[in-house]
Amino acid sequence: MDKKTMGIAALIVAIIVAAALMVATGEMNGVAEIGQSISNGFSPNEQLQFGKNLDIWFMLMLVAFLMIFIRKFEWGVCLAVLLSAAGSFVIYLALATLVPVDGAVPYEVWDQSLLINAVICAITVVIAIGVFLGTCKMWQYFLVGVLFAFVYYVVQYYIMGSVCESIFGEFATDPGGSVLVHMCAAYFGLGVALGIREKRAFNEPMYTTTHSVTFVWLASMLLWMLWPSFVTSLLDPSQITWGTITCYMAGMGSLISTYIVCVAIQGKVNPLIYTYAMLCGPVAIGAPLLSVGPWGALLIGLIAGAVSALCFIYLQPWLCSKLGVLDVMGVHNLHGVGGWMGALFVSIVVGSFTTLGVAVLVFAFTLITGFVVGFIVKMTRGEMADEELIDDDVDFIKSEKPADA
Amino acid sequence: MDKKTMGIAALIVAIIVAAALMVATGEMNGVAEIGQSISNGFSPNEQLQFGKNLDIWFMLMLVAFLMIFIRKFEWGVCLAVLLSAAGSFVIYLALATLVPVDGAVPYEVWDQSLLINAVICAITVVIAIGVFLGTCKMWQYFLVGVLFAFVYYVVQYYIMGSVCESIFGEFATDPGGSVLVHMCAAYFGLGVALGIREKRAFNEPMYTTTHSVTFVWLASMLLWMLWPSFVTSLLDPSQITWGTITCYMAGMGSLISTYIVCVAIQGKVNPLIYTYAMLCGPVAIGAPLLSVGPWGALLIGLIAGAVSALCFIYLQPWLCSKLGVLDVMGVHNLHGVGGWMGALFVSIVVGSFTTLGVAVLVFAFTLITGFVVGFIVKMTRGEMADEELIDDDVDFIKSEKPADA
Amino acid sequence: MDKKTMGIAALIVAIIVAAALMVATGEMNGVAEIGQSISNGFSPNEQLQFGKNLDIWFMLMLVAFLMIFIRKFEWGVCLAVLLSAAGSFVIYLALATLVPVDGAVPYEVWDQSLLINAVICAITVVIAIGVFLGTCKMWQYFLVGVLFAFVYYVVQYYIMGSVCESIFGEFATDPGGSVLVHMCAAYFGLGVALGIREKRAFNEPMYTTTHSVTFVWLASMLLWMLWPSFVTSLLDPSQITWGTITCYMAGMGSLISTYIVCVAIQGKVNPLIYTYAMLCGPVAIGAPLLSVGPWGALLIGLIAGAVSALCFIYLQPWLCSKLGVLDVMGVHNLHGVGGWMGALFVSIVVGSFTTLGVAVLVFAFTLITGFVVGFIVKMTRGEMADEELIDDDVDFIKSEKPADA
Repeated sequence: MDKKTMGIAALIVAIIVAAALMVATGEMNGVAEIGQSISNGFSPNEQLQFGKNLDIWFMLMLVAFLMIFIRKFEWGVCLAVLLSAAGSFVIYLALATLVPVDGAVPYEVWDQSLLINAVICAITVVIAIGVFLGTCKMWQYFLVGVLFAFVYYVVQYYIMGSVCESIFGEFATDPGGSVLVHMCAAYFGLGVALGIREKRAFNEPMYTTTHSVTFVWLASMLLWMLWPSFVTSLLDPSQITWGTITCYMAGMGSLISTYIVCVAIQGKVNPLIYTYAMLCGPVAIGAPLLSVGPWGALLIGLIAGAVSALCFIYLQPWLCSKLGVLDVMGVHNLHGVGGWMGALFVSIVVGSFTTLGVAVLVFAFTLITGFVVGFIVKMTRGEMADEELIDDDVDFIKSEKPADA
Repeated sequence: MDKKTMGIAALIVAIIVAAALMVATGEMNGVAEIGQSISNGFSPNEQLQFGKNLDIWFMLMLVAFLMIFIRKFEWGVCLAVLLSAAGSFVIYLALATLVPVDGAVPYEVWDQSLLINAVICAITVVIAIGVFLGTCKMWQYFLVGVLFAFVYYVVQYYIMGSVCESIFGEFATDPGGSVLVHMCAAYFGLGVALGIREKRAFNEPMYTTTHSVTFVWLASMLLWMLWPSFVTSLLDPSQITWGTITCYMAGMGSLISTYIVCVAIQGKVNPLIYTYAMLCGPVAIGAPLLSVGPWGALLIGLIAGAVSALCFIYLQPWLCSKLGVLDVMGVHNLHGVGGWMGALFVSIVVGSFTTLGVAVLVFAFTLITGFVVGFIVKMTRGEMADEELIDDDVDFIKSEKPADA
Repeated sequence: MDKKTMGIAALIVAIIVAAALMVATGEMNGVAEIGQSISNGFSPNEQLQFGKNLDIWFMLMLVAFLMIFIRKFEWGVCLAVLLSAAGSFVIYLALATLVPVDGAVPYEVWDQSLLINAVICAITVVIAIGVFLGTCKMWQYFLVGVLFAFVYYVVQYYIMGSVCESIFGEFATDPGGSVLVHMCAAYFGLGVALGIREKRAFNEPMYTTTHSVTFVWLASMLLWMLWPSFVTSLLDPSQITWGTITCYMAGMGSLISTYIVCVAIQGKVNPLIYTYAMLCGPVAIGAPLLSVGPWGALLIGLIAGAVSALCFIYLQPWLCSKLGVLDVMGVHNLHGVGGWMGALFVSIVVGSFTTLGVAVLVFAFTLITGFVVGFIVKMTRGEMADEELIDDDVDFIKSEKPADA
């Protein structure tokens, strides 16, 4: 089939799916029926959540710009982020409102917290694709998003839900998503990369420009400042100030220690290490968010930033050569390592190793399911010539002035 | 008169106008009197509106960056946006607080909703100038903003108000501005372009660079995520969650279908079609925002994105050659077409063609008044040499390194 | 000592300081004890302040992009902003929660307003470093941040507190920070520059590119729209709408008058004057924020924008040559001049010269303490070769394609 036929087919399928869901959920019965399935109360917490919902979408978009430093692969990152987000967001909403967990659907009524859960699912897969960006076809990011929503649904409602409770007798402490978001993203992404097994990625030159890296600075700095919205988005209002304080203090720690480590080890600052590792404090504080005070959070941030920077410098080349696949955006050094630290810190502070135990389960489950998804991607990918890897020319029409090209 | 004399004259006029309004509105009588004309209650809704007010200003600024892809005309877009916004914002506020409609001024007391109405007026003219950007003098964007405020005032308070009610016996359903904002912008802008009739715009080469288009990606992605703030800004709090859901679902639809259509028709993605048409779901959902459920909104978004992309590809060249003027930023394909779809969808869903009827009135009124404004612009524009069109060199001092120039 | 040893030493010191503060503040005693020192009520005002807290951090990050126009010194600006912010933020929090003022610490309980005060302290030093950017070592921005927190603490709690009250019998009127933030920033920064006395900065060519200046447009436009969040962040909720209105109206004034003055004096617009001076309305309205109405605010903005643009054109070269140091980012023309205007306007409007009197005290105190800090910077700076000034190559590892370098 040529692109035109496939495109028309895809559009028809999408329209039929949407129309079928309309009918199945009773939307055709009129506005009154629809209204009953949507929250119309507007408590103070929902007011806050409206803003946080948008803030997390803001962060999702910024993750694209965090990964935009390769000049010949700027637009592809943006499009891949949008397509993977769309796939996971829509499917997560369908699952959470239609597929029962332990006998009941998670959400009978659509409200702000449902939307927040869905965008957090989407941002998780957006982080995950950073591991294997540029090594599959553009439409496959949508496919990965769709499949990831199922994986995330199982992690959120079973592994960190009933499975965790039945094994450890309690739920894990992870209000800010060190495990659910960051470890999930890193190991699902690594799993996909292992499934695709694209060794040619090692050979791709990743030239930057001054401005492409400036976009990364912008994204990193704005992500850093938006982070409290993300970690406090599903908290009880009485805990929001606490979460804001510890998140910013942990962020302060990694801002400082990442700089020190970069200069101490490499003499100068590699901007693509600094802008990533400076976010590791907020990653690692996710689990112990409400278990430490401001100065403890600062300490956690100092350690997390230093460890993440060291991982970018020393662990990344070793791990990638061992695994035989390239972690294109170094996702593991920020989200994988940061997630483990979060689980470890909270386990030490609260004196229970439940969170660390669940982290092991999530690690194993996402790595395996990621591998399966990666295998599916590889099977459906078809040929990719060397020059199709990590390159906008494959997917985009350009209109640059000949001399600037 | 030379520029210096004209500048001093303009500054003196501006200062006199502001001072006269100070005196006329009783501000010289002291703080207590001023306080009575400003809302000091702060209901939960006004709390939300504070944030939405700023979000819409954020969107207004981002519209500039959505139109910034022509490398030799980046700064001019920014300045034109600011000047047209300033002209329309200030005049709208004066009209809404001083000029009666049906016997009473719309706002006796300044509150957050007044500010929101004013910035929505401003963003409408900012979208409108996209049609004829680069074909008039810089100061004329301010003039267009000033004149547009009157047009918008009539559309909002008469055409969609008493005129609509007397003709159709009810008000139009348009909570998210498909007609009031998007159609108004597209057809006023087209009207101005027809009035200016600058045929040389067709000949201008519009070279982009990788980074100039990356700014467009940034703007489009952030506009997409901010959209729920805009469409829910004037709703009753009980409807905000509904509007958030349908806005994001419609956005999902156009994210997906625009990609499919771009690839199906052109083989590769034209980033300047994708980043625009992906916003057509949120444009088209404006009118049926609270008349459909999540999956119906997804369906509307799928259709709107596909239709908009097709219009960029097929309608734009045909329409521009028929009209004899270039729609520089393709405003009509996103806002004009999206607005019509919104009016059509809501008319079908609610079973009343009032909104579509009003859309026809707004179409005619804005096209005609736009034409008059365009004619005024043409008369006051004076000579523009070929090299003055769509070019920053006319308006800005540059300090680039000779080799980079 | 080499960089590695110094780095390890610095990291150990940071960790010890954080750990010591943990112990000293009782955080080791467990979660219950920590909870008592953190606000868990969540009043409507604290809900608003959560968003404003993040907005001010957003503005702080944007100040970096406002100063990013020198192509060879883009990343250094970002890193300097982060390090100076980190130093001042952490130390301010320690001071405000641990060091008594008039017998009691300003904050026994950490809440949103504490965080807002701390980020306002941080944004003040971030503005201040604009005066001497590129003339000291990177780690010294952190040092300046640390030292500045003490200066700001004295200004906020003594000079504008008990000192002001004992001299003038009342507190100064400065709800939006014309004096506390903008004058403090400008004159502390100038003081540091005078202490460093780096005359070679005059010789540095500051070449821009189209895109580096486009980042400045983005930053300036977003700062402009976020400004109401900053000036209303510590107000009583009943005053927030008032502050929003006057802030935007003053911003309108400077958007318009700056354009007129730029064109009248220089024929074309210098984008690095326009994007700065257009913010002078919001700077100058800080003090009279709640003492004027909308049209009075417009008038203030018109005057402030015009005066600031004139200062960029005429005062900057004269002042810098008189002082013998370069105000690298022209901070004084926006923040110094705007601050004085704010103090002057409010004094005239309310008929009391207290604010202007305090402005003189703040001017003198920050200039002198800045000079001392600058002297410390000079003493600890060591040698800087000519090519180390205002240049990213000193601090960063680059990976550009040889041909693009």
